[in-house]
Amino acid sequence: MKNSTYLIILLALGLVFVSYKWISTASVDCDAAVSAQTSPASSTYEDIMTRTSVRAYSDRTVSGAAVDSLLKAAMAAPTAGNKQPWRFVVVRDRKTLDYIGDNFNSMTMMKQAPLAVVVCGELAATFPDEGVGYWIQDTSAATENLLLAAHAIGLGAVWCGVYPMSDHVKKFSELLHLPEGIVPLNCIAIGYPSVSPSPKNKWNPEYVHYESY
Amino acid sequence: MKNSTYLIILLALGLVFVSYKWISTASVDCDAAVSAQTSPASSTYEDIMTRTSVRAYSDRTVSGAAVDSLLKAAMAAPTAGNKQPWRFVVVRDRKTLDYIGDNFNSMTMMKQAPLAVVVCGELAATFPDEGVGYWIQDTSAATENLLLAAHAIGLGAVWCGVYPMSDHVKKFSELLHLPEGIVPLNCIAIGYPSVSPSPKNKWNPEYVHYESY
Repeated sequence: MKNSTYLIILLALGLVFVSYKWISTASVDCDAAVSAQTSPASSTYEDIMTRTSVRAYSDRTVSGAAVDSLLKAAMAAPTAGNKQPWRFVVVRDRKTLDYIGDNFNSMTMMKQAPLAVVVCGELAATFPDEGVGYWIQDTSAATENLLLAAHAIGLGAVWCGVYPMSDHVKKFSELLHLPEGIVPLNCIAIGYPSVSPSPKNKWNPEYVHYESY
Repeated sequence: MKNSTYLIILLALGLVFVSYKWISTASVDCDAAVSAQTSPASSTYEDIMTRTSVRAYSDRTVSGAAVDSLLKAAMAAPTAGNKQPWRFVVVRDRKTLDYIGDNFNSMTMMKQAPLAVVVCGELAATFPDEGVGYWIQDTSAATENLLLAAHAIGLGAVWCGVYPMSDHVKKFSELLHLPEGIVPLNCIAIGYPSVSPSPKNKWNPEYVHYESY
């Protein structure tokens, strides 16, 4: 063969080698990207730090499957003595949501929300220490799980307090026909966000003490 | 040029083309992998569902940076009226941890834990509805964030209740020199797990009601 032929073969082999190196690098970068972004520390921790209250929602419907996911996350929280004293009322009825929005000053966003979850405690079900037990602790942990799960799957939500305000407790109990002994802790408005509020930075080292207060 | 030269050039170009297609496919797969595995739904939701109480720990020290991460996650929780009534006591002192383990039936794991965080509420700082406010709700949400963050960064932890047990509250207040009005909600044992307990499946559709109870 002529010299020019050897040159062309050499160039072609060079191109193949460069291509091969490029592929290898691409694969390594891919693994690194997957590993860096999927280590629980990055995504879960980031979701905890970036979740914030969302009070405005689009018209998009929240599927039944999404609601189940939120409730499963709520029920994954720990409870004292594993008593699981939580109960949930899922509200989609437009009239009920509007009634809540019209009757509670801090809940006007309900008039726009496609969905609310009212987290309740069953007093008879809580681990019974000191008569009051742990139903507030247990249902609050469940609520935080629900809020984080909502944020993680692209929903926005806000925790609106009901208990311990006696007038709020009474009105919600009547509205949702809660039996005696079922106490509404909060009402969570949920929907796909139509806004992107920035999370507050609430880190305050003055709230941390070491070994004793 | 000879026919064989054309053939070699054609083969070389073919190889380059195949390499190019290979690279393109690799890049697409990489994007898909990153997207599928880093959508918050996968890792955050999985961490919520797989977190469980861990009561046995290795000797490995928990770094100060890790403790800060846990406390930052705790303080990312929502609070009523953004009052942030949480206060934290970080305990590493072996004698204090052993004292807790020896004196509270449900806290024997503290004798093995390298670290505990006592989550407290400052009664004067809570949003003051009905006199009691929301300090239990707020500190419980913070605790759940701390537990999830611990799980996400490879630590194990367990929430041991203190409030409302009056003898527990008294003993912890004395032990940690808590001022009047600072109430210990719980004591969280934390360490690198030496066991891998399976999470409980607590999903119970009977706890879910639609539109009314």
